[in-house]
Amino acid sequence: MSGRKRVYLAGPEVFLRNASEVMARKGQMALDFGFEPSTLAEDGVKLSGNTPHEFGMSIGVANETMMDASDFIIANLTPFRGISADVGTAFEVGYMRAQGKPCFGYTNTDRDYYTRLTVDYYSGGPFEEDGDVIRARDGLMIENHTMIDNLMLDTAIILSGGSFVAKEVSGQGVDDELSAYHDALVAARAFFDAQK
Amino acid sequence: MSGRKRVYLAGPEVFLRNASEVMARKGQMALDFGFEPSTLAEDGVKLSGNTPHEFGMSIGVANETMMDASDFIIANLTPFRGISADVGTAFEVGYMRAQGKPCFGYTNTDRDYYTRLTVDYYSGGPFEEDGDVIRARDGLMIENHTMIDNLMLDTAIILSGGSFVAKEVSGQGVDDELSAYHDALVAARAFFDAQK
Repeated sequence: MSGRKRVYLAGPEVFLRNASEVMARKGQMALDFGFEPSTLAEDGVKLSGNTPHEFGMSIGVANETMMDASDFIIANLTPFRGISADVGTAFEVGYMRAQGKPCFGYTNTDRDYYTRLTVDYYSGGPFEEDGDVIRARDGLMIENHTMIDNLMLDTAIILSGGSFVAKEVSGQGVDDELSAYHDALVAARAFFDAQK
Repeated sequence: MSGRKRVYLAGPEVFLRNASEVMARKGQMALDFGFEPSTLAEDGVKLSGNTPHEFGMSIGVANETMMDASDFIIANLTPFRGISADVGTAFEVGYMRAQGKPCFGYTNTDRDYYTRLTVDYYSGGPFEEDGDVIRARDGLMIENHTMIDNLMLDTAIILSGGSFVAKEVSGQGVDDELSAYHDALVAARAFFDAQK
């Protein structure tokens, strides 16, 4: 057990109706690939603190502690309540990246950020040309870096030596479809095996 | 100049029509408070790379380099293209937090995450009770930690010794109204003065 790399499993699964089941399956799959999964905090932590705010903080503290103790991260970056990844998960990728740890991500859609932005968020336009850039009706620039999500996420994952798996899955959204997660595990296993 | 703390100014202002003007004003205000602002990367970096993807990565690399060289962060966490902060900015707060640097944030609204989630995103319901929790029509749990945004952001800012300013401003949204930013500068100045 001592040689196993410890993986921090990040993502908004805790909000699912079958959160415990999904998180247990993700943990088992990580084990099957020879990794030691850090149980997602919100599932294991007992309600602590006298207020909802203190309880929330206790989850945040537990997550930071688990990240500090983990060797790498696999982040579920499937769009959550909007066109981008869950901001808590994005925070966690940044946290692990700053510690120089490999960052892996996956998303249950193969539609890139530009598509989600222009089609889903802005309903296909209208857009205007403004010099070298394109702007939406709210005046905001429409960026197209041909990336999966925000450039900080894509860049950090690549620079860290990790992979960002974007795969259209049957269920879509943040659900219990774990084939993209599986592919991220495959990539992580290959990464660590190559270091031996 | 040598004693000045260097602040990384994070936020999605680069997408604004008047991005250069807003970023210049934010930089000047930081100077007025005795801080050394790191110019936001996307404004200063020349187009590099042969593809949009390489250009995007060059921005990501520049931002990471500037964060490494900065003493603290002030992040514009105003909801961006949805009900939460820009995910790139959330990534950056996590990055700076992991380096043990003070994190300050602000948002141009005083409506908390729970309100934005239940009223703006879910249009007021319907919601169902499921044991101890509330769920929306999509089955996702509705959390209420009485926090300004995702608990990882709120927790990190507080634990780091920083402040998260939530202030309803006239213009709303991500715009050139900088009074919440001003209040974050006041808080940061007080934080560093107290360390002397």
